[in-house]
Amino acid sequence: MVKKTTTGFRPEQASLTADTTRDDQRLADRKQGNSSLVEQEVKREDLGFGTKINDASSRLVNKDGSFNVVRAHQDFWNHLNLYHRLITMRWPKFLSLVVGFYVSSNAVFALLYGLLGYENLKGIAEVTPDTTFGRFMGAFFFSSQTLTTVGYGHISPMGYWTSALAAVESMFGLLMFALATGLFYGRFSRPVANIRYSKTALFGPYLDINGWMFRIINQRTNQLIDVQVEVSMSRLEKKADGTTNRRYYALKLERSKVNFFPANWTIVHPITEDSPLYNCTEEQLAESDAEFLILLRATEDTFNQTVHSRFSYRYDEIDWGRKFTIMSQSTTKGSRGTLVDLDQLDETVVAGLN
Amino acid sequence: MVKKTTTGFRPEQASLTADTTRDDQRLADRKQGNSSLVEQEVKREDLGFGTKINDASSRLVNKDGSFNVVRAHQDFWNHLNLYHRLITMRWPKFLSLVVGFYVSSNAVFALLYGLLGYENLKGIAEVTPDTTFGRFMGAFFFSSQTLTTVGYGHISPMGYWTSALAAVESMFGLLMFALATGLFYGRFSRPVANIRYSKTALFGPYLDINGWMFRIINQRTNQLIDVQVEVSMSRLEKKADGTTNRRYYALKLERSKVNFFPANWTIVHPITEDSPLYNCTEEQLAESDAEFLILLRATEDTFNQTVHSRFSYRYDEIDWGRKFTIMSQSTTKGSRGTLVDLDQLDETVVAGLN
Amino acid sequence: MVKKTTTGFRPEQASLTADTTRDDQRLADRKQGNSSLVEQEVKREDLGFGTKINDASSRLVNKDGSFNVVRAHQDFWNHLNLYHRLITMRWPKFLSLVVGFYVSSNAVFALLYGLLGYENLKGIAEVTPDTTFGRFMGAFFFSSQTLTTVGYGHISPMGYWTSALAAVESMFGLLMFALATGLFYGRFSRPVANIRYSKTALFGPYLDINGWMFRIINQRTNQLIDVQVEVSMSRLEKKADGTTNRRYYALKLERSKVNFFPANWTIVHPITEDSPLYNCTEEQLAESDAEFLILLRATEDTFNQTVHSRFSYRYDEIDWGRKFTIMSQSTTKGSRGTLVDLDQLDETVVAGLN
Amino acid sequence: MVKKTTTGFRPEQASLTADTTRDDQRLADRKQGNSSLVEQEVKREDLGFGTKINDASSRLVNKDGSFNVVRAHQDFWNHLNLYHRLITMRWPKFLSLVVGFYVSSNAVFALLYGLLGYENLKGIAEVTPDTTFGRFMGAFFFSSQTLTTVGYGHISPMGYWTSALAAVESMFGLLMFALATGLFYGRFSRPVANIRYSKTALFGPYLDINGWMFRIINQRTNQLIDVQVEVSMSRLEKKADGTTNRRYYALKLERSKVNFFPANWTIVHPITEDSPLYNCTEEQLAESDAEFLILLRATEDTFNQTVHSRFSYRYDEIDWGRKFTIMSQSTTKGSRGTLVDLDQLDETVVAGLN
Repeated sequence: MVKKTTTGFRPEQASLTADTTRDDQRLADRKQGNSSLVEQEVKREDLGFGTKINDASSRLVNKDGSFNVVRAHQDFWNHLNLYHRLITMRWPKFLSLVVGFYVSSNAVFALLYGLLGYENLKGIAEVTPDTTFGRFMGAFFFSSQTLTTVGYGHISPMGYWTSALAAVESMFGLLMFALATGLFYGRFSRPVANIRYSKTALFGPYLDINGWMFRIINQRTNQLIDVQVEVSMSRLEKKADGTTNRRYYALKLERSKVNFFPANWTIVHPITEDSPLYNCTEEQLAESDAEFLILLRATEDTFNQTVHSRFSYRYDEIDWGRKFTIMSQSTTKGSRGTLVDLDQLDETVVAGLN
Repeated sequence: MVKKTTTGFRPEQASLTADTTRDDQRLADRKQGNSSLVEQEVKREDLGFGTKINDASSRLVNKDGSFNVVRAHQDFWNHLNLYHRLITMRWPKFLSLVVGFYVSSNAVFALLYGLLGYENLKGIAEVTPDTTFGRFMGAFFFSSQTLTTVGYGHISPMGYWTSALAAVESMFGLLMFALATGLFYGRFSRPVANIRYSKTALFGPYLDINGWMFRIINQRTNQLIDVQVEVSMSRLEKKADGTTNRRYYALKLERSKVNFFPANWTIVHPITEDSPLYNCTEEQLAESDAEFLILLRATEDTFNQTVHSRFSYRYDEIDWGRKFTIMSQSTTKGSRGTLVDLDQLDETVVAGLN
Repeated sequence: MVKKTTTGFRPEQASLTADTTRDDQRLADRKQGNSSLVEQEVKREDLGFGTKINDASSRLVNKDGSFNVVRAHQDFWNHLNLYHRLITMRWPKFLSLVVGFYVSSNAVFALLYGLLGYENLKGIAEVTPDTTFGRFMGAFFFSSQTLTTVGYGHISPMGYWTSALAAVESMFGLLMFALATGLFYGRFSRPVANIRYSKTALFGPYLDINGWMFRIINQRTNQLIDVQVEVSMSRLEKKADGTTNRRYYALKLERSKVNFFPANWTIVHPITEDSPLYNCTEEQLAESDAEFLILLRATEDTFNQTVHSRFSYRYDEIDWGRKFTIMSQSTTKGSRGTLVDLDQLDETVVAGLN
Repeated sequence: MVKKTTTGFRPEQASLTADTTRDDQRLADRKQGNSSLVEQEVKREDLGFGTKINDASSRLVNKDGSFNVVRAHQDFWNHLNLYHRLITMRWPKFLSLVVGFYVSSNAVFALLYGLLGYENLKGIAEVTPDTTFGRFMGAFFFSSQTLTTVGYGHISPMGYWTSALAAVESMFGLLMFALATGLFYGRFSRPVANIRYSKTALFGPYLDINGWMFRIINQRTNQLIDVQVEVSMSRLEKKADGTTNRRYYALKLERSKVNFFPANWTIVHPITEDSPLYNCTEEQLAESDAEFLILLRATEDTFNQTVHSRFSYRYDEIDWGRKFTIMSQSTTKGSRGTLVDLDQLDETVVAGLN
């Protein structure tokens, strides 16, 4: 029997087959009937998606690791989820937003200064021409000098209201800048596992049996340690009454944890007699809308933070009868240990199934 | 017997009933009498509230998850707990505080500049009228330009004391701004689980027996993984000598952990013969001042932080003979996986108890 | 036998007495002699202080939780440990340092401006009198306006060198301010458990036997959850050859973990026959230089961070034949749950030992 | 038998020898042959480096704890890994970069102001001579005043384009400063274990057998608690078919965890009959390209963060027949507990092997 390698995450799901007889016996000894349904339910594996998702055309986990879920009637702030978005959006979009916010803030304040009278901005006439556009632009530049707290002073606010508006704007500038500082730090220091997964998973020979396998690599030079992987399979199954329910299986792995992750790692589920994939064909996999869900946990070494990565392979992202080529090699003369060529991650060769 | 699902949090509370005979035997074999009271005490479950809270009219955990405790003779700083308050208060209050602090700081500094003589602020007369109020406001605006480090310079400090005060104020401004930056970042990056609990818990049919259940949903689009739930019941029990003591029970759950929490989750305590709720009636629950305490732990995926959420249901927040309606559905045509309507969280229907 | 409550921290120290016979047997079956010393060593409890600390007049852990250790030949930066000191020093000292640094930086830069010629600071003569001191103070104020980036401009740098120095200073000011921002945030957000320990531990009656106990309280309004306590005793013991060695014992606790810590908690080590304190007298404790080391772990709820607290009681900080008075009470009319009076933490009454 | 001290990190590697018979039996009972290769593979220890690294002249882990791996075809941003580099580089290099960036940014902006015409910078002629170099330097100083937001205003931008460039520069300055603030905080608050390892590991007498040992010390005054150490040995082994494969062994330690780490700690692998080093000679160790990999985990007490440290000893960094001298001593008169002289870390004396 393949030794269990799930490391204590789901004690309630342990020993699905081995303990059945012992449990049945205990049940017979001490209870009469009424909890057997409960017991079955307790033992049923569920990742949190539930059994009602029967739609065979959608997937549970998107390619970017997010869940394939839409929320209705979410309230405004929870839907906006501003901080989350500002932290996770890509850099070009983030920087465009920052610049856009700066320009439009200045434009709005320039209009407000105009409402209070451009003549209250002393020195403006020396900077830009005394036309409508020129005065607006002068106020725009004054606004930018106030917002960033540069404050040259060659344009300066006069009178109560213009001075007050400048006081408000400089305060506003400081707060926005405090925000930007936090966002920059948050974006940079956010722990992410830059794991690249092989484009397809393989169903191929493994030792003297077969295995379901995929390969991962750490794309960054950051070092990951204590890398743990959990793989679950979800598929539709017909119940006795003819309805289909979604069922979940934790797949036992050859190795579910490595201490160090210097290069590449091929994760293998050996298809032994215990496996839900035992004697499974490509057609059966497709019919049952099978999806393989991967949850990876590791410790990132720069900030010693825990990082997660999710991924999923659907039945149509599995190659049958192939195996991965060897990827990492010793360099010649040991100049710098091991060479890993990231482009070889997806390289496979045909290999007959056992 | 329902398999234990508490995942290693309280090893000392395990197996309350099953091991009694074995323990007794071991006791008889190896010890004589004197530790039996100790052993009972060690086995007694206690969440940390103690046994002395007999007041039936108060609750242990407030609806917002805080403990229902008042501290007397707390020292000033611990009572104020400034950072904690500034971080946890709501945004409108926080921003009002920031603006209020800015305005009042400027007012105080304006008065101090007045004490040193407004005539030491060169250029003030050009900005605001040469009246008492005008001079004060001029000093106020100068103060705001110093505090925010805008420093236009059309008003500028002259002489030793006014210059020194401006030097102090700009320093003070920088420190306050450093504080504000930290507070903004702290407020935004604080890990919170935006879990919504169903308004009431239910006592309803579950498989072929009954169960006590409630339902939760993740209101945010942030993704939560590795969600663990612990539920304890607290109730008053009469001891042999007639006094009442508060006792605590860890409730066994159908499922105490899910790997993913994409949508909604109904947490069920199956009322088997082992359950402290076995054969319990609505009246008994009310009499014993029962309260159900919930502690949820999860990992928030943006920053990979652990988040907690506490909640409690009192005996009068439980509906009898109802069950929850199904909440998440596959969307048509699989355009975007599963649809979850947050407004359906509290929807229940009448359901006869088994 | 009291059930083990240490929650998995030191598996190698488990079952010191119970397994001896089984281990001896296994040893006899499978090995011949040579590993028995190794096995004894592996089983010996050691907290990390070692056996060589025989000096009876010093303690292992200071009252503030730091270790009683001096390092010689530490290199400069490790000894200085600047960030650690700036983060952990008390607020008055920290703020004095900040102000002192500001004043002395300005003084140094004022001197440097003087070296380059005060006449290169245009406008200085209008601000302060044209004396040596006046010019120095003018440069000092200009420096403060540059360091804080206020930059009014009524004093402004002229010529290459003075302009360059001002450019350097404003850069320096920004970096110092970046540092200050980080320090403020670090100081505020640092996770600390504000646990207050009772001044003395007690040796008093506990149920029908005796116990060694102390009491703790959370001084802050922050909420602590999942509080775990480990207590170890260290004492000098005479070996067969007459030399004294320091030995360590993990003390079994009535309860080593609570889920919630709303108010006070009395931690009890029941003195059963298993206890190293069984039949121990006050004199024996003093002779053996006994010290009780406490390590507390908890989760602070604002930022969901793990916090630690260390404490130690020496033999002369233990009161014999006393017990703690009850501390937390239900408030009248249940207006706000439970009342905890922090001043009652150290209140004890005489209680005869069993 | 030495009791297992690895604390649950690699359940799949437990009991390599003891359970063989039991496993074989179970295998015979329930399976027929085909999974035996799988079972061997599951049991094989692998730290993540794989079996293919046969080059005897390179090491797996460099002296600074990084992995000895080169990545080919890494994409630009992942290769640059800017934040990681800026956070982990040494202070002198980091500060040089900051200054260099400041100077070159100002130079670039000065040139841009020149392109728009230096005459648009009003007041520049008063500050620096009216030569090409003088005008450039004037623009350089104006740029520095804009970048740092000092903004004296004695030089000020005139006209649309120069004003716009100044607005862009002040914005750019703020963002760079936000970045710098984050980097400073990140660099300071990054959790690092400043562990110093003894220069060589020793193969020397231990109790009545021999042991492989090394010694560590905490160089900082920060306090480390819950320190765990894992040691693995990697060596090349000839397979039956004549090829060499790299194999990994987890070495059992006398003590793999201490609660406190106040001073020094000698980590010992006792060479019992179970040990892969049993009867191993210095020559065999060299031939098999043996490397000892150390992974240390601890909790740093200032910020309660987990810290890691990696290290490795190669066969040629092991001294045979020596032992460490005692390092920490009680100070006289107990003025301040224990004295630890860091310079004694590497002190060893000759000691005959058992």
